[in-house]
Amino acid sequence: MAANVVKRVLVVAGAGNGSGTGAATARLFAKNGYTVALIARGADSLSKISDEINAAGGHAAPFALESAFPKPEYEIRAAVWNAGNAVFKPFLSITQEELDSVVDTGIKSAFSFARHTILAFKEKEIDAVSGKRGALIFTGATASIRGNVVTSAISAAKNGARALSQSLAKEFGKDNIHVAHSIIDGVIVTDRTREHRNDPGWAEDENRRLDPESIAKSYLYLVNQGNTSWTWELDLRPAHEKW
Amino acid sequence: MAANVVKRVLVVAGAGNGSGTGAATARLFAKNGYTVALIARGADSLSKISDEINAAGGHAAPFALESAFPKPEYEIRAAVWNAGNAVFKPFLSITQEELDSVVDTGIKSAFSFARHTILAFKEKEIDAVSGKRGALIFTGATASIRGNVVTSAISAAKNGARALSQSLAKEFGKDNIHVAHSIIDGVIVTDRTREHRNDPGWAEDENRRLDPESIAKSYLYLVNQGNTSWTWELDLRPAHEKW
Amino acid sequence: MAANVVKRVLVVAGAGNGSGTGAATARLFAKNGYTVALIARGADSLSKISDEINAAGGHAAPFALESAFPKPEYEIRAAVWNAGNAVFKPFLSITQEELDSVVDTGIKSAFSFARHTILAFKEKEIDAVSGKRGALIFTGATASIRGNVVTSAISAAKNGARALSQSLAKEFGKDNIHVAHSIIDGVIVTDRTREHRNDPGWAEDENRRLDPESIAKSYLYLVNQGNTSWTWELDLRPAHEKW
Amino acid sequence: MAANVVKRVLVVAGAGNGSGTGAATARLFAKNGYTVALIARGADSLSKISDEINAAGGHAAPFALESAFPKPEYEIRAAVWNAGNAVFKPFLSITQEELDSVVDTGIKSAFSFARHTILAFKEKEIDAVSGKRGALIFTGATASIRGNVVTSAISAAKNGARALSQSLAKEFGKDNIHVAHSIIDGVIVTDRTREHRNDPGWAEDENRRLDPESIAKSYLYLVNQGNTSWTWELDLRPAHEKW
Repeated sequence: MAANVVKRVLVVAGAGNGSGTGAATARLFAKNGYTVALIARGADSLSKISDEINAAGGHAAPFALESAFPKPEYEIRAAVWNAGNAVFKPFLSITQEELDSVVDTGIKSAFSFARHTILAFKEKEIDAVSGKRGALIFTGATASIRGNVVTSAISAAKNGARALSQSLAKEFGKDNIHVAHSIIDGVIVTDRTREHRNDPGWAEDENRRLDPESIAKSYLYLVNQGNTSWTWELDLRPAHEKW
Repeated sequence: MAANVVKRVLVVAGAGNGSGTGAATARLFAKNGYTVALIARGADSLSKISDEINAAGGHAAPFALESAFPKPEYEIRAAVWNAGNAVFKPFLSITQEELDSVVDTGIKSAFSFARHTILAFKEKEIDAVSGKRGALIFTGATASIRGNVVTSAISAAKNGARALSQSLAKEFGKDNIHVAHSIIDGVIVTDRTREHRNDPGWAEDENRRLDPESIAKSYLYLVNQGNTSWTWELDLRPAHEKW
Repeated sequence: MAANVVKRVLVVAGAGNGSGTGAATARLFAKNGYTVALIARGADSLSKISDEINAAGGHAAPFALESAFPKPEYEIRAAVWNAGNAVFKPFLSITQEELDSVVDTGIKSAFSFARHTILAFKEKEIDAVSGKRGALIFTGATASIRGNVVTSAISAAKNGARALSQSLAKEFGKDNIHVAHSIIDGVIVTDRTREHRNDPGWAEDENRRLDPESIAKSYLYLVNQGNTSWTWELDLRPAHEKW
Repeated sequence: MAANVVKRVLVVAGAGNGSGTGAATARLFAKNGYTVALIARGADSLSKISDEINAAGGHAAPFALESAFPKPEYEIRAAVWNAGNAVFKPFLSITQEELDSVVDTGIKSAFSFARHTILAFKEKEIDAVSGKRGALIFTGATASIRGNVVTSAISAAKNGARALSQSLAKEFGKDNIHVAHSIIDGVIVTDRTREHRNDPGWAEDENRRLDPESIAKSYLYLVNQGNTSWTWELDLRPAHEKW
């Protein structure tokens, strides 16, 4: 990723295996002129996604460890927090290890990512076109606004991250840093859900499932909102979802 | 408005004096190929807005009475409920007449408008591009999610209309009718707020006030969302808003 | 009801046929030393309830019309808004008459009742024991916080009344007038639900249904809360309710 | 604490220095026939509170470490989670150590306490009088439902614990285990707030601050609710609180 190609950078935390929201966001922003920095624990899938984006004429680079958060030579203007482990189990079956994993990735790592991102935004001038120093989006879920049976751990983490995003939106709006939160209220079609869901026709029926590309579009919309009207939170669900 | 120019129609209820959200939405949708039908009680300002849109090469027609709701020859695909009277007064000073006006326009007329709109949508096939029969957006406010001192009447009406929009979203999603609700959390710059607000520089500072055009853009975004990921509710506020 | 027996008065709007929440509240407050004033449209059932309370050594009087709201000779210290018509129907089947009935009783009459009540409270000194001028409780429902399929009308009215109660709580707290709102999230066992519900054992299983007496107890608790810690809102549901 | 005096036991986590909510709850429940088990990190203040309760004819015992959670010989019927560290600072000034402390005590320890409590409840039969196996109450705050400037860490933890409480209420209601959550929306008068608040007359004005005793009363009310109508959540604030 040569310095001269670096214009605006999007950082994505949680790009998974390439079939989900993080990767789709990376691809869409790459098509829209962003250089993409991918952060995750597993280096392999990141390389795959960044190779694919670079092959398509975009610019992407993987960062396997959070300590390697993109340095100041990158002009970070957008960031998506899409990481976190999920555990869906009856309360008494959740192990300490599972709880630690859900809370540490869902809240503590989200704080760390937000800290890096906001520090990077604060170094920059306000962008003349967008009126922003930068935009940080958190991917939330139904569990972000509700605790249900089997969601005690994940709801605790997601409600916590949502509250963090609201605090940040209120604290950094005056610095022209836009913080937003999405509530993904339905199942996203990915490699994993496609495989595990025993429901013929489900993956093909746009009315019944979210797809990563449409979520990515809503993230691009949020990042492009002018500073006269910013959204903190929106929900996203398929047309036929029962809710 | 000749039949042959009628492609997709947007109906706007509550276009005010032309400087607010309803009129801006009409103008933006007209630029994007929609024929615009304006509904309000006062015919004068409606003519002004529709004349302006027609002069700019768009297609618009005013409907001064609700009984003249656009007939089946129009292919209604989008509708914005932007009407309603507001009263901000201590509870004991609100007159019966004021309460009736706020509740009747804020809830009963919203029901009537939604009924006309949904009946019109249900007559149409699902649009191949959007995956929708149509989209109906309600303009909400801070008062839609909270009751405050001096907002007893308007909060009752706005909370009520928000609940209506949620019921409709749940009931008609399965018919590919998309119902959304915006929470406008801040002051919109219009002729009236410009005049009444004694705050030099306020109207010019994009960070401190909403403008009708940006709200209109978010409505166009909502109408264009694919059926794999629909938003029921989003909030909109200026970058520097304290909330 | 001789003047010398009038100590503290509870006014109940919506006492139904005597088997529901309003009547149970009247009975419980009568046992706790309140004189009870009952307001409703149908005079017959009111007479039955007040006769029963008087026969049990309490003091009660029916007021068949709202225009006969108890006059200043009564020391009104508590009021329960328990009225309102409910309609559960698909949106397009709701008639204008049904909508009017739900909105007019659910919001406009609630405003009127609140107005009478608060004016009565404001005439009194702060009660030395309770630290209040008076307490006004609104009976809410699941529909008070959510719009669902078939609840468009009732949710609009109940969300509206809830917002009213919040405005009032905020505006009149400083006058030591306590306004509260309950969310009844489940089916109450009454003559009607007992009859219509085809579910043997349901009415007898305390874990599966609310009863009017326990709701009444929670209202007495709210009325007795000291001014150092007032509740605006609490939810009430049976132990085994799925929610 | 002799075995023969053990009837019903209340466990309190977070009894602080004896002037706050946890200690007031312990004292009130002791007066109402509960044996009280106090859990906290600092043994000194616990001994002071338990000595005081025992001197007053009640029964109390301190447990300095969570590993010493009261054993099966105690018939645990009520538990209050009142612990957790608070940090109110701008987001960028919060250290990793502070974040860990807030999240670990606010969420992870809450999970652990809930686990011990629910396991203890599940061993018991349903109490004939209350219709419950036991009741677990979480002390929440304004930060439980909102993220504000300077509350990013504490709001994340408190929103998380609230979601946990809702999951537990839904999962264990069917086992007649009652889980509730309070939202303390105002400042509680304690040794510390009395000292730090430079506002003469504040501590004495019941309209302007919460006191621990009245919160304790609401907890006793919740624990005593019959199984036909349980509250998951109530808010508590002083009469004159601006909100």
